Amino acid sequence: MTFTERLLDLQQQRSSVLCVGLDPDTSRMPQHLLEGSKPHEAVYRFCADIIDATLSHTPAFKFNLAFFETFGSQGWRVLERLIEHVDGRALVIADAKRGDIGNTARMYAESLFDHLGADACTVAPYMGRDSVEPFLDFPGKLTFVLAHTSNPGHHDFQQLQAEGEPVFAHVVRKVQEWTEDTPGEAGLVVGATDIQAMKRIREMAPGLPLLIPGVGAQGGNARDVITAAGTSAPMIINSSRAIIYASSEADFAEAAADAARKFNQDLRA
Amino acid sequence: MTFTERLLDLQQQRSSVLCVGLDPDTSRMPQHLLEGSKPHEAVYRFCADIIDATLSHTPAFKFNLAFFETFGSQGWRVLERLIEHVDGRALVIADAKRGDIGNTARMYAESLFDHLGADACTVAPYMGRDSVEPFLDFPGKLTFVLAHTSNPGHHDFQQLQAEGEPVFAHVVRKVQEWTEDTPGEAGLVVGATDIQAMKRIREMAPGLPLLIPGVGAQGGNARDVITAAGTSAPMIINSSRAIIYASSEADFAEAAADAARKFNQDLRA
Repeated sequence: MTFTERLLDLQQQRSSVLCVGLDPDTSRMPQHLLEGSKPHEAVYRFCADIIDATLSHTPAFKFNLAFFETFGSQGWRVLERLIEHVDGRALVIADAKRGDIGNTARMYAESLFDHLGADACTVAPYMGRDSVEPFLDFPGKLTFVLAHTSNPGHHDFQQLQAEGEPVFAHVVRKVQEWTEDTPGEAGLVVGATDIQAMKRIREMAPGLPLLIPGVGAQGGNARDVITAAGTSAPMIINSSRAIIYASSEADFAEAAADAARKFNQDLRA
Repeated sequence: MTFTERLLDLQQQRSSVLCVGLDPDTSRMPQHLLEGSKPHEAVYRFCADIIDATLSHTPAFKFNLAFFETFGSQGWRVLERLIEHVDGRALVIADAKRGDIGNTARMYAESLFDHLGADACTVAPYMGRDSVEPFLDFPGKLTFVLAHTSNPGHHDFQQLQAEGEPVFAHVVRKVQEWTEDTPGEAGLVVGATDIQAMKRIREMAPGLPLLIPGVGAQGGNARDVITAAGTSAPMIINSSRAIIYASSEADFAEAAADAARKFNQDLRA
């Protein structure tokens, strides 16, 4: 099955387009988890409990690799153990934003898809075609290419007017070309903080799945997103901080489940 | 001391602008190293021997993180051990090409500079200012931002004409703005395969150090690079495959040292 087929199945089963973003920051985690534990062990406990509690409300988890890499090899071990812990019960997106020349891109793709066993990942487009194509060689996997991001810095280069349209529109066009005949699928990362850009991208690329960060803490509104992203291809709306830090007390996992449930209810309303 | 000061000292001591790129691919490594060893252990042995053999001929080593990440946490452990093995005898560049929103970029910077102890790293510019600035907060460290890369895909976005100049020129301009008052330094990645672009970048940014990949296997000529990059700020010329795979027999480390020595001699001629 393709990533998209598995995603649509799980989204229907769980009545949810949510993705729970795992960005475990020890300074924001419940402090009792850190008492008597090494920080990376506390990160494991925190994420494993959130995964178990939110699993029935979310088709996917997005692991932000930076928050694990800050602990080096021990953080990577935690990442490996957490993906084993998910054990196929939800889709795993490795939010890695890698991007390098062809032979190096292949190594990154093997790391994320073969070694970690992620179902999807994120990549950066700046280095062009040969930095993205190796990721599209993996059947059953999907690669989300950064198109229009949710952070303030998206103005610097993504919105430059280049030969009649913004740079991000060139990225959207090229990603569609590159994935015409590939064994794996491509999608786009499109931030929730600019609804006009999202509409434009959806018109240009009705067939590409969208991974949408930037709701909640970053200011995007989930209902506006639903309207703009439409139904021509799947969307995944990521929420990290609003869910995983819903409580900093002993009830953090239960509070995360409540936040995920409420997110789904609000969208269905 | 700043990164640039340490670099200039070492470049003078060793009469070399070389950087040995460590991209350890088990399919190209001497096969005797793999017999009876786990692949990641063979990678450690291979790189440690190359480091010791080439150390007196090179001021810097560039670790390509993809080639370690393909082994997951065990590969990261090898990376940590190899940087400990360098032990300050040369500068360490973490070629990671990370790039993400502010709070995530800070985690990546901590991972590379604090945890791994790298002296410099590479980052991708697509997400703009807040994805680069956290890296510039580290005194004594230098961050090379991708400007014009050496791979075929650099045509796709870097060379788009945007508001009067190519996208890569916008990157060069912005990086100079961003680093005006930062504790850490910035530099640029500029491929050796387009000498005209290199000259243009040097004119625009006479004060930024350049990290230059793409000589040797990728087709760039080191002498042309020396002329184009000039002397207004330091340059580092990376060579990976031509040095580390100089021999695939038991004499691989010695052959790498010979290749590094010859590289330096050719440039001094």
